[in-house]
Amino acid sequence: MATIRDVAKHAGVSVATVSRVINETGYVHEDTRKKVETAIKELHYTPNEVARSLYKRKSRLIGLLLPDITNPFFPELARGVEDEMQENDFRIIFGNSDENMKKEKEYIQTFVQNNVVGVIASTNHPDTDTYRKMNIPVVFLDRTADNRPSVFADGREGGRIAAHEMIARGSRQITVMQGPKHIRPAQDRYQGAVDVLSKEGIPFNVIMTSSFSFTEAGTWAKELFEQHPYTDGVIASNDIVATAVLHEALRLGKKVPEDVQIIGFDDIPLSSLLTPSLTTIRQPAYDMGRAAAQLLMQLIENENIDHKTIQMPVTFTERDTTRKVDQHG
Amino acid sequence: MATIRDVAKHAGVSVATVSRVINETGYVHEDTRKKVETAIKELHYTPNEVARSLYKRKSRLIGLLLPDITNPFFPELARGVEDEMQENDFRIIFGNSDENMKKEKEYIQTFVQNNVVGVIASTNHPDTDTYRKMNIPVVFLDRTADNRPSVFADGREGGRIAAHEMIARGSRQITVMQGPKHIRPAQDRYQGAVDVLSKEGIPFNVIMTSSFSFTEAGTWAKELFEQHPYTDGVIASNDIVATAVLHEALRLGKKVPEDVQIIGFDDIPLSSLLTPSLTTIRQPAYDMGRAAAQLLMQLIENENIDHKTIQMPVTFTERDTTRKVDQHG
Repeated sequence: MATIRDVAKHAGVSVATVSRVINETGYVHEDTRKKVETAIKELHYTPNEVARSLYKRKSRLIGLLLPDITNPFFPELARGVEDEMQENDFRIIFGNSDENMKKEKEYIQTFVQNNVVGVIASTNHPDTDTYRKMNIPVVFLDRTADNRPSVFADGREGGRIAAHEMIARGSRQITVMQGPKHIRPAQDRYQGAVDVLSKEGIPFNVIMTSSFSFTEAGTWAKELFEQHPYTDGVIASNDIVATAVLHEALRLGKKVPEDVQIIGFDDIPLSSLLTPSLTTIRQPAYDMGRAAAQLLMQLIENENIDHKTIQMPVTFTERDTTRKVDQHG
Repeated sequence: MATIRDVAKHAGVSVATVSRVINETGYVHEDTRKKVETAIKELHYTPNEVARSLYKRKSRLIGLLLPDITNPFFPELARGVEDEMQENDFRIIFGNSDENMKKEKEYIQTFVQNNVVGVIASTNHPDTDTYRKMNIPVVFLDRTADNRPSVFADGREGGRIAAHEMIARGSRQITVMQGPKHIRPAQDRYQGAVDVLSKEGIPFNVIMTSSFSFTEAGTWAKELFEQHPYTDGVIASNDIVATAVLHEALRLGKKVPEDVQIIGFDDIPLSSLLTPSLTTIRQPAYDMGRAAAQLLMQLIENENIDHKTIQMPVTFTERDTTRKVDQHG
C-alpha cells in the first residue's frame, strides 16, 4: 500500500506539504495541490486514519458499551446507534459489559486509549469515576443520571400502564416479576406496576428474578406457577421472561388469555410471532439508539443543546395474551 | 490527562526514553526505568494506544463485519468473537453490511484505515478485491471460499438431516423454504434438503424467500399455506421463518406436529421457548464465533496453522414441532 512518503516522492514535494493538502491545514499553492492530488489518485493512496487522528487529535471512532448483545433488546439499540453513526462516517468499537464493573472499566479505558471521540454506554454505574473523569462526551443509553446526557424510555410509566391494563382486563390475582435488582430500568417498571396495584387496592405476588437469561427465565416461570398457582395475570420483567411464562402456562394446560393474561416489556422482534402473540409495553429501541447517536454527535461538535436528557415514550402494544377490554364484562 | 511529554519532564528524561520504557524497545538503565515508571504512576499516565500502534505498527483492534446484528443468529456469533477477543485484550470495531457490497467495502476500508490487525467477515463476496488485496489476515465466518481461513457450519449436511428426519417422521407433502439466493449458507441447506428428497423420490414444493426479516417471514408463511394448503411438513430456511410458519399454522387451526411438522435452522435462543418448542438444525453459533477469533489471532501471530478452514458440525435438535419417530407407525 502507498504511504504518504510515496505520495510526496511521486509529487516531488515534502511530506509536510502532502499532509497540509490531506488535512486542509495551512496554505498550499494551487499547482502543488493538484500535483499532490494527482499523486494520491495514481498511487491509490488512502490517508491513514490513525495518523490523521493523531495529527488532528480527532478520530472518527466512538465506543459503544452494552450489557449483553445476546439479549434481543440490545441488537435493536445497537443497530440504531450504528445506522446513525455509519451515515455520519463514524465507526464503533463495541463491547459487552455483562453488567460487570471491572469489565466495564476495562472497556472504557481501552476505548479512550484507542482515541474514541465519544462513548455511548448502558451502564448501571453512571456515577463512578470511570465516567465522571472522562474528558470526552458520554451519552447514557437505556439509563440516565442527574441531567447528564442520556436517552432512555419511561420505564415507570410502562409499569403503570401494564398494571392499569391488567386490571382493566379483569385480572385480580396478579403476579409481578421483579427484574434484576441492580438494573435500574427493571426496577423502574417494577415500581410503576406496584404503585398502581397498591393504589388500586389490588393484592399481588412478587417473583424476584436476577437476570434476563433465556435459561433462567424458564426456571422462574416454573417457580411462579408453583408458588402462585391461582395467578390470573402476569406482569413480566421483559419479553424473554414473558415468553417463558407463556410457554409454562400453556404446558400446564392453562388457556392464555382466558385463564392467565400476560404482559411483557420491550417488544422484541419475536414477540409478535409467538402464539398467542405477546401483549407488551413497547420501548422504541431502534429509535433510542438513533437518538443517542445524534445526541453524542452534537456533543462532539460542541453544539448548543437544549435537551440533553431524552425520555422516549413507551406504548401499550395490545396483542393476544390479554383479553379485549369489553370481553371481561 | 497526562501526556508522554509530562511523564518525560516529571522523570527528567527525554520523550524517547519514556517511549523505550513503554514499548520495551532498546536499552534503558535500570534507575532511569524506575524513574519513568514512578512518573507514569504518579501522573496516572495511560499510554496512548494510537501512538503505540503507529510506533509498533500493531494495534489491538480487529474489525468484525456481520450482515445484520438484529437477526438473532448473529448476536451469538458476535458474542463468541468478542468473548475470545476480550480475554486476549483485543478490541472490536463492528459494522453491519446489510449484505450490501458498497457498505461492506466502506466498512472494510475504514477498518484498515483505523489500523485493525485482522478482520472477521460474514460476507457473500469473499472473492472480491476488497478481501484479496488486503495485507492483513481475514477470517470468513459463517462463510467460506477456496481453502481461505474460515469457520462455518455444514449447511448442506444440515439440509440433508432435516429432510431425512422429516421423512422418517411421516411427512409426505413437504414444502421447502428456499432462503435468499445470494446467501450461500442458505443455498447449501436448501440444496442438502432437495438432494435427499429427490433421491428418496418424495415430491416437494418450494417457497422462495428473499430475506430473513421478521416482517417478511409472516408474508411467506401465509403464502406457503395459501399455495400449498395440504403441506404436512415444512423445512424452513431458518428459525425466524420457522417461527412465522408455526404462528400461521396455529392461526389456521392446524395442529403442530400432528397436522404439520416444522423444522427450523440455527437454534436461536428463543426457539426452545416457543409453544410447541421448535425442532431445528442447530448451528453452534457462539462456538463458531470463538473459533473464528482464535483462528484470526493465530494468523495475526503468524503461527503455523494446519487447519485454516474449520467446518463445525450441525445437530438435529428434536423438540415439539416434529412427531416422535415411533409415533407415525
